[in-house]
Amino acid sequence: MPEIDPARLIGDLRRLAEFGRHGTGVHRLSLSEPDVAARHWLRDRMAEAGLEARIDGVGTVFGRSRARGPVLLMGSHSDTQPRGGWLDGAMGVIYALEVARAFAADPACAGLGIDVASWIDEESTFLGFLGSRSFVGELKPDEVARARSRDGVVLTDALERAGFAAQPPVRLEPGRYKGYLEAHVEQGGTLERTGKRIGVVTAIVGIRGGVLVFEGEQNHAGTTPMNLRKDAGVALVEFAHALRRAFEQTAGPHTVWTFGRIVLEPGSPSVIPGHAELTMQFRDPDTVRLDALSARLDALLAETNAAGPCRVVLTQPRRTEPAPMDAGFQDRIEQAGERRAPGLVARLHSAAGHDAMVLSRHMPSAMLFVPSIGGISHDVAEDTSEADLVLGCQVAADAAAAILKA
Amino acid sequence: MPEIDPARLIGDLRRLAEFGRHGTGVHRLSLSEPDVAARHWLRDRMAEAGLEARIDGVGTVFGRSRARGPVLLMGSHSDTQPRGGWLDGAMGVIYALEVARAFAADPACAGLGIDVASWIDEESTFLGFLGSRSFVGELKPDEVARARSRDGVVLTDALERAGFAAQPPVRLEPGRYKGYLEAHVEQGGTLERTGKRIGVVTAIVGIRGGVLVFEGEQNHAGTTPMNLRKDAGVALVEFAHALRRAFEQTAGPHTVWTFGRIVLEPGSPSVIPGHAELTMQFRDPDTVRLDALSARLDALLAETNAAGPCRVVLTQPRRTEPAPMDAGFQDRIEQAGERRAPGLVARLHSAAGHDAMVLSRHMPSAMLFVPSIGGISHDVAEDTSEADLVLGCQVAADAAAAILKA
Repeated sequence: MPEIDPARLIGDLRRLAEFGRHGTGVHRLSLSEPDVAARHWLRDRMAEAGLEARIDGVGTVFGRSRARGPVLLMGSHSDTQPRGGWLDGAMGVIYALEVARAFAADPACAGLGIDVASWIDEESTFLGFLGSRSFVGELKPDEVARARSRDGVVLTDALERAGFAAQPPVRLEPGRYKGYLEAHVEQGGTLERTGKRIGVVTAIVGIRGGVLVFEGEQNHAGTTPMNLRKDAGVALVEFAHALRRAFEQTAGPHTVWTFGRIVLEPGSPSVIPGHAELTMQFRDPDTVRLDALSARLDALLAETNAAGPCRVVLTQPRRTEPAPMDAGFQDRIEQAGERRAPGLVARLHSAAGHDAMVLSRHMPSAMLFVPSIGGISHDVAEDTSEADLVLGCQVAADAAAAILKA
Repeated sequence: MPEIDPARLIGDLRRLAEFGRHGTGVHRLSLSEPDVAARHWLRDRMAEAGLEARIDGVGTVFGRSRARGPVLLMGSHSDTQPRGGWLDGAMGVIYALEVARAFAADPACAGLGIDVASWIDEESTFLGFLGSRSFVGELKPDEVARARSRDGVVLTDALERAGFAAQPPVRLEPGRYKGYLEAHVEQGGTLERTGKRIGVVTAIVGIRGGVLVFEGEQNHAGTTPMNLRKDAGVALVEFAHALRRAFEQTAGPHTVWTFGRIVLEPGSPSVIPGHAELTMQFRDPDTVRLDALSARLDALLAETNAAGPCRVVLTQPRRTEPAPMDAGFQDRIEQAGERRAPGLVARLHSAAGHDAMVLSRHMPSAMLFVPSIGGISHDVAEDTSEADLVLGCQVAADAAAAILKA
């Protein structure tokens, strides 16, 4: 089995975290100055590792193996959330680099290739999953042309300024890969709570939801009798209450749902709201379960509109399908984990989205999780013990070798 | 009975509405340029009517009768809501002026006095009920010193610029008045719905409420299992639902309650809210009923905090006591109404606050309502038919005479 170099791994993780360092975390939004600098640094590390390394037209850093094959694609993203964690995304990129280096140093891996990717903008500063979606050919040209950040920065301008715009895109070469392997911090507390050290991801959840818009009639909160009101705020509260009960009845063990935002308009203490909005989403790894939850939502929408007095519609619908991970790859990761950390491997789903979701639509894909301390994510307090970081990378290397030798 | 002059009444109402005219309504915030001009115009009309007229140190326009008495105080406010109606407040001021003129012209009213007031800032541009509270001596000096508008204009600066600051305040003279009578548009649709033309106000509602603040734990909407969440948004929804049920059981025929504003923080689709705020209020003309509603609210607060997982507290508590109107004055208004419009008089409470609420703490007080077309208020579309405006003023004059002759 290829042996990784723990000191080199931890050193590169710490070095990457210097780009955009923010306290104990990192603020490295896609195409910001520290992000562009980090991409150049990553390209140089990939080149040092013997890969054909370049930054493509959307900013993805890609290191292509010179091995004659078979080849496994590995990677994650090096852009971060605003004031995010140092490992979210970055860890999977450095794991991929370290595995490629371990393979190159191991005669038993001669001929086996690891391509290394740092997909750009998984965190959606401009356009979510921009790098991986560009790679697999799922991007529509006008999506890139129209994308802009919340601050109004136009994506194509930012690519121009970074010097990436003129570069050709990296595209998936049909037939090249045995599959895709992505390592990531768990971002939840399941591994920690259950005392496990390696997570084998079974599926990435599907996400559905949108913004429920309630229309009533704005009026004076003193002089309008209760029985004459069309109160959009009350309609929202009653809908949310009923939806919660319906979801509780229909939920599976992995279902989660969230009311993230409520707005009443005009939002004054003495005015009956004429307009209200409820932003909601629900997630499950299983499409059948998502369909059952959708059916409850649809039924409640119909009931509410039939009963009145307010109207409600679902706007800005969101729908991401669950992404099941490859069963054979899962077994390989589990076996590799059990060899290095007997009894400390668990299967679990990913409740957050990852580039592997995009890749899994085009090739067998899998994910390996390491524990997040306290389950904290998208925060500068996100962390994982060095021992777990080293173990996770070694298991990834072992699993990659097993997949390529299978 | 003193006879009013319909043409003079309507003419002055229309002339006053020219100050700050905004489409079919008026935008005449306290101490704005059109408001100051309207105050000078009102003072001149009061002087013409034979009253000792002046503008006092907070901007109230006051016309003191020279009659030897007894004296009735009449008035309302001439400041308006932003883009408000032309009659809200203004009508009660011009009614008072017209009644004073009708008394002066009627030998049968010789010796009977009508003092006329246009109280400043009922609509709370700087400090709600500033004029009437100053008159009865309820203002604390630092309230005036600290008051500023939402735009940051300091009240004392605005009084200085208007040229009012150096004037002495008008103060209630003990023993001078038989009481206070205020006419106002209904601001609701009760008179119109029931086909009545004169409303006799039984009481002005009390108002209670505040901002309910829920504290939970902000977390990732995907990776946090439902049973580990402390979701402040869900706590708010369930609280609002339960409070609505409790209030429905406890409410009287005149109770209204309103959820005017909801905020979830941070307010992102994929983040479990760690903090949530619900702005609520309830109104009733009866203190016993308000106490019963408060008890339900307190019980639910205790239950929720005992059950967890989120904490909830009531902040920014608001409490205005109900103001019952004088029973004898109510009878006089009803009798006057029945004489001029038999069968078209109704008793009803006021669900909005008025200067009469302040005055009623210091002398017998009463209010007379005229119908609002479509129940519309605080909007440029607010209106009342000319026939109702004339009838209302005549009934006010008759009632004033009956009160003073009693």
